[in-house]
Amino acid sequence: MSEAETQRWETGRIEAFSDGVFAIAITLLVLEIRVEDFEDLRSALLHEWPAYLAYVTSFVTVGSVWIAHHNLFGQLRYVDPVLLRLNLVLLLFAAFLPFPTGVLAQSFHASEDAERTAVVFYGAIALIIELLLRSSIRYAVSKPELHVEHAPKIAFPLHAQTHGWRAAVGSAAYSLAIIFGAFVFPRIAAAAYLLVALRGVLVVGGEGKLSLSSRRKSDSTHA
Amino acid sequence: MSEAETQRWETGRIEAFSDGVFAIAITLLVLEIRVEDFEDLRSALLHEWPAYLAYVTSFVTVGSVWIAHHNLFGQLRYVDPVLLRLNLVLLLFAAFLPFPTGVLAQSFHASEDAERTAVVFYGAIALIIELLLRSSIRYAVSKPELHVEHAPKIAFPLHAQTHGWRAAVGSAAYSLAIIFGAFVFPRIAAAAYLLVALRGVLVVGGEGKLSLSSRRKSDSTHA
Amino acid sequence: MSEAETQRWETGRIEAFSDGVFAIAITLLVLEIRVEDFEDLRSALLHEWPAYLAYVTSFVTVGSVWIAHHNLFGQLRYVDPVLLRLNLVLLLFAAFLPFPTGVLAQSFHASEDAERTAVVFYGAIALIIELLLRSSIRYAVSKPELHVEHAPKIAFPLHAQTHGWRAAVGSAAYSLAIIFGAFVFPRIAAAAYLLVALRGVLVVGGEGKLSLSSRRKSDSTHA
Amino acid sequence: MSEAETQRWETGRIEAFSDGVFAIAITLLVLEIRVEDFEDLRSALLHEWPAYLAYVTSFVTVGSVWIAHHNLFGQLRYVDPVLLRLNLVLLLFAAFLPFPTGVLAQSFHASEDAERTAVVFYGAIALIIELLLRSSIRYAVSKPELHVEHAPKIAFPLHAQTHGWRAAVGSAAYSLAIIFGAFVFPRIAAAAYLLVALRGVLVVGGEGKLSLSSRRKSDSTHA
Repeated sequence: MSEAETQRWETGRIEAFSDGVFAIAITLLVLEIRVEDFEDLRSALLHEWPAYLAYVTSFVTVGSVWIAHHNLFGQLRYVDPVLLRLNLVLLLFAAFLPFPTGVLAQSFHASEDAERTAVVFYGAIALIIELLLRSSIRYAVSKPELHVEHAPKIAFPLHAQTHGWRAAVGSAAYSLAIIFGAFVFPRIAAAAYLLVALRGVLVVGGEGKLSLSSRRKSDSTHA
Repeated sequence: MSEAETQRWETGRIEAFSDGVFAIAITLLVLEIRVEDFEDLRSALLHEWPAYLAYVTSFVTVGSVWIAHHNLFGQLRYVDPVLLRLNLVLLLFAAFLPFPTGVLAQSFHASEDAERTAVVFYGAIALIIELLLRSSIRYAVSKPELHVEHAPKIAFPLHAQTHGWRAAVGSAAYSLAIIFGAFVFPRIAAAAYLLVALRGVLVVGGEGKLSLSSRRKSDSTHA
Repeated sequence: MSEAETQRWETGRIEAFSDGVFAIAITLLVLEIRVEDFEDLRSALLHEWPAYLAYVTSFVTVGSVWIAHHNLFGQLRYVDPVLLRLNLVLLLFAAFLPFPTGVLAQSFHASEDAERTAVVFYGAIALIIELLLRSSIRYAVSKPELHVEHAPKIAFPLHAQTHGWRAAVGSAAYSLAIIFGAFVFPRIAAAAYLLVALRGVLVVGGEGKLSLSSRRKSDSTHA
Repeated sequence: MSEAETQRWETGRIEAFSDGVFAIAITLLVLEIRVEDFEDLRSALLHEWPAYLAYVTSFVTVGSVWIAHHNLFGQLRYVDPVLLRLNLVLLLFAAFLPFPTGVLAQSFHASEDAERTAVVFYGAIALIIELLLRSSIRYAVSKPELHVEHAPKIAFPLHAQTHGWRAAVGSAAYSLAIIFGAFVFPRIAAAAYLLVALRGVLVVGGEGKLSLSSRRKSDSTHA
């Protein structure tokens, strides 16, 4: 048994554990939403709009991380110790997201100063999650001994996610939104987080139209 | 590899992730129930009857969604990007259900106006979940390339769930109950939500007597 | 395809979903434990002893249900609609357990009257869970078409769990403890709940010494 | 069927259930973090530093337990009744960890006396988890009939984890930190808990450099 072989685990239980953490992080978000005033419940429910937006933003963010995670591990047969730990740190920040989500939602009823702080806090956590995800993908691509022998029939090959400007769009967008939110309009930054997350679900996973056209080309080249 | 083939994922991990979200959403419901008064605990526990009813209603609602989801994915081998995202939106609303459940339970100790609002709010979320479920089934039926080759030995074939009046009963019942609850008796609307959910568990899953007799007929036709 | 065949599902996803609900119910119990007084933290932590006992009791109760559930489904290949719904009702009550657990723990710092009420409430839920579990086992035994062909190498054959006095010990113990707690000493009833649950983990699962000796005998008879 | 054979279960569902409990325990930790003051949100967020540290410490602690658990069960094919119950007790304490985590975080804003108490409380639970984990590994090593036939390609053979000083480092470190925290500096003890947990993730799992060099040697000996 070579050293490389003794250094790796099958992916099954890591996927199961990660799925558990993602599923719970995504579900705990709802506990941050509360109404107190039942005298005028209609207004009280409408008044909670920042909480609904924050819930949707974080749900879509975790959802897009889950899609990318699913895409990554679907192309891997083994994880090695480095990837195992990168994944654990990724889960640490993903499981933390309900806290900045609650802070962001509540800040909208406080002051603009609170909004700025909450937007920077939320954006920093989202940016760290994005960077950890990109690092995991980049690392996994560089280790062909971890890959499945026959690439599965999934949408977006890993190498395409580590090259070119597209891999950096998420990080760049979060960085710009954080700066913009800190100094100009915090609410527009918050909207940007939702857009980045939606892009993660609609495009980056590789099943969107953008990625499709580029892959169809590469398919015909390699065929 | 054709475009269609590169566009699909195996269902395993999506089922696991969905099961996680359903299991947590169904379990978090209990956190909405609280008693404060330990002086007269017996009355305090009885006083919480709307919370118990709301718990049972939402548990059965999520349970019926889980049965239908199980039934759907048991007949699929792959999911494509559209179904993946429909499923994510379905989970977003299912994981949100503990919030309207808590609101509904608490409204019964406030005013009739609060009850009306809570009943409409709860019904709207339940209706959206029902519509997303029906859309997922309808979409999956229209994509034979996603189906398992040999239909599994489960109770209710998918095509039967998209035709005729039976597929629309849930949505119609929720819509009527919302209108009835908003303008006439909110508590009867709340009871209707429980009945619709019970029907989802007892009949629509396809294992009830109704569906059985109709399928036995179609079996003898096709044999 | 016969009617019986179209009436059953493979057990995989039902086990996964049940495991999720049990795992969450068992873990949410900790949220019921809180200290407020950090002036004298040592006393405050000791003062929470009823919460620790209630946590352990409910953890062991859910644990024993999980062992019995695992034992049951390990001997089944399929579930039919009746068993699916029995299982859903079992999960409904298991997921509810954190609420009576919290009530029981808090009642110990209220009055003896509150203790009596809480003990009866907790015992009623535990008794219902026990009865649902026994009903599921009894039903499954009566349906040989659901069983795995080669009985797995597990400890306790199902038929042994439905005959004789041993199958009724749990229900009888809960019933007696409820009556005893309601009219005599509530704290002794609470201790009895812990003992019944411990028995469920140590004996009834079929891996205890009692069950072993009886099975070894039946093995030699049938061999 | 021999008695030993009737005494064991396949590991699949125990791993799934344990993964669920670990995933939820690790995720519930975030619910202990709260800010109330939105007037000066920046200070309020910084003021929560003990909560962040406690979150990271407990996340890494549960993460290291999960890695060791994964490593253990990856080398087992069956569990017997003793291991099943040891595992249940391990889960009982792992699922309890969010409570001492919250107590520890809050104590840092109370008094040094509260810190001492919280540090001893947290350390005692962490020590018990460590001892239960070591006992499970030690027991599993002593039962070759539970092992997989062909040792999987994972990093650290079990027998190496039960011999020599390395197996006792965690327990010794927790014990020393508890005494040190109780009588000298509680905050240094809290830092020690984080270091022990980090070591559990970086070294003891067997994928660190230390274990590698020693295993490479034993590979060449046995080859």
